[in-house]
Amino acid sequence: MSQVVAITRNGVNTEQLYGTLDAIKDDPSLGIFQFRAHNHWIDGAHNRSTIKSFYGAGQEDSTRIQEFTVDAGEPAILLGTDTGPNPAEYLLHALAACVTTSLVYSAAARKVNLTMVESTLEGDLNVEGAMGTNTVDFRNGFTEIRMSIRIAGDAPADKLREVVQRGTDRSVVFDSISGGVPISVDVTTV
Amino acid sequence: MSQVVAITRNGVNTEQLYGTLDAIKDDPSLGIFQFRAHNHWIDGAHNRSTIKSFYGAGQEDSTRIQEFTVDAGEPAILLGTDTGPNPAEYLLHALAACVTTSLVYSAAARKVNLTMVESTLEGDLNVEGAMGTNTVDFRNGFTEIRMSIRIAGDAPADKLREVVQRGTDRSVVFDSISGGVPISVDVTTV
Repeated sequence: MSQVVAITRNGVNTEQLYGTLDAIKDDPSLGIFQFRAHNHWIDGAHNRSTIKSFYGAGQEDSTRIQEFTVDAGEPAILLGTDTGPNPAEYLLHALAACVTTSLVYSAAARKVNLTMVESTLEGDLNVEGAMGTNTVDFRNGFTEIRMSIRIAGDAPADKLREVVQRGTDRSVVFDSISGGVPISVDVTTV
Repeated sequence: MSQVVAITRNGVNTEQLYGTLDAIKDDPSLGIFQFRAHNHWIDGAHNRSTIKSFYGAGQEDSTRIQEFTVDAGEPAILLGTDTGPNPAEYLLHALAACVTTSLVYSAAARKVNLTMVESTLEGDLNVEGAMGTNTVDFRNGFTEIRMSIRIAGDAPADKLREVVQRGTDRSVVFDSISGGVPISVDVTTV
């Protein structure tokens, strides 16, 4: 009898990681994914997204049992009652989470055992754009996002920096925000 | 004695809304905002952001009492254990939440009373880019995001569509994702 020993590094099953890469190389159609979110307005700046279903690896996912619920809001100065982080803050969270996961997976593939990954993100904007008081001088969105990453592990500093570089190079959200994504909007009035 | 009656529409205090717009017109420096998130890796695809402080309207905010905590994860097919929505899904949530809040505020300013706003978002990507198995044919990020909005209120369909248009036109996150934002990364090895 053969014995299969799962090799987990940084909490990532590297056998499954390599197996996934091989499977997609064999059948590129498995690489097609679609993620989804459904949002409904509650009151004022308070709205809620429910997140569960997605398509990937050739089929609708059937493994995710739980439906996630995330609430958004605004602080008082932006006319809300702090019912959750605001949408701009969620954008920063999405970026931080994606770069972190990408670099953790990259480290696992490169046999680097990490002990700490932390990041602090700052996003600058002038709300005159979004508020419509001065749309000439200001865009609506962030003008710049800065990400400071602290990382520790059992590899030399250069190798840890390579892992971070790979994390940003391969991150879905980093690329989406830095490169931009076309968004189409369809409206139904009820 | 004069009596001040707050006029709340769609859960938005419109007196405060107009007051904020006037204050920024009088002193444009009040429009400068900086939002922040701090993230730390827990294990595998599990990481957590804490969100509280921000700068805006000429000062560090002191009104937000609560620190928000949001957890990210990945489903099994992407080597995680569903510890939260994944980062790409959070990006969709950020977009949905921002457009919703923008259009709700816009409706309040235009004296439209809304009874329902719902949106369904789909984001397409091929993970071959992010996984590195085919970086020639595929980008890492979303290739397209589609947003379907359902809206109801006490205004004709044309007016409701105008409100949605204003919501997307003025949304911080819509503009950030559709137009792209430069991201700088600073790394410290510990």
